[in-house]
Amino acid sequence: MHHNLVPSDRVEHVNVYGSNGTKLGSIERLMLDKVTGTVAYAVIKTGGVLSTHHHYPIRWTALRYDPVRQAYEAEATLEELQTGPCEFDGDEFDWGDRSQSYKHPNYWAV
Amino acid sequence: MHHNLVPSDRVEHVNVYGSNGTKLGSIERLMLDKVTGTVAYAVIKTGGVLSTHHHYPIRWTALRYDPVRQAYEAEATLEELQTGPCEFDGDEFDWGDRSQSYKHPNYWAV
Repeated sequence: MHHNLVPSDRVEHVNVYGSNGTKLGSIERLMLDKVTGTVAYAVIKTGGVLSTHHHYPIRWTALRYDPVRQAYEAEATLEELQTGPCEFDGDEFDWGDRSQSYKHPNYWAV
Repeated sequence: MHHNLVPSDRVEHVNVYGSNGTKLGSIERLMLDKVTGTVAYAVIKTGGVLSTHHHYPIRWTALRYDPVRQAYEAEATLEELQTGPCEFDGDEFDWGDRSQSYKHPNYWAV
């Protein structure tokens, strides 16, 4: 039956393509507001199995599921994500720290 | 640093206790509204590794994280959850089907 809900563990690990069609990576996890239970953003993990990874935040509403490719299409290119905050493997990046105001349209949604 | 976000993959598999202190099970997954990215409910999976499982929905706002036990406390007992919708292992239960209006306070939050 058609409905409007999606399980969190079926969002995680799904591939993500950029608005120019290039594969960005996959959804690593969702960051949720503890109080309201709203997705602040998804984290896109780039790179292959054996390489190092970058981790980029993206607004939930900037992701559109494509049932044909069984992947998300992001309203951004890799170049656009690279202008925003990024964690590189091994960084001490605090994903919940919102004290810095990044001028980036894909950083926060809540 | 203290902040208000929690990663989805740190909510999944966390233990849940009922309001009377009895262990209910663990968080199996979160069901998200596709459009708004809001958690409609969490699914609690009961039972041990070798037993069969029941799966109960519970409102996000009915879960409170207890950092001492590193577990969620639910605003409900097992008996209360049993008055609402439930999936038993192997059921063809459609978790997104919201056409039935269960008279249950923990069923839907969005």
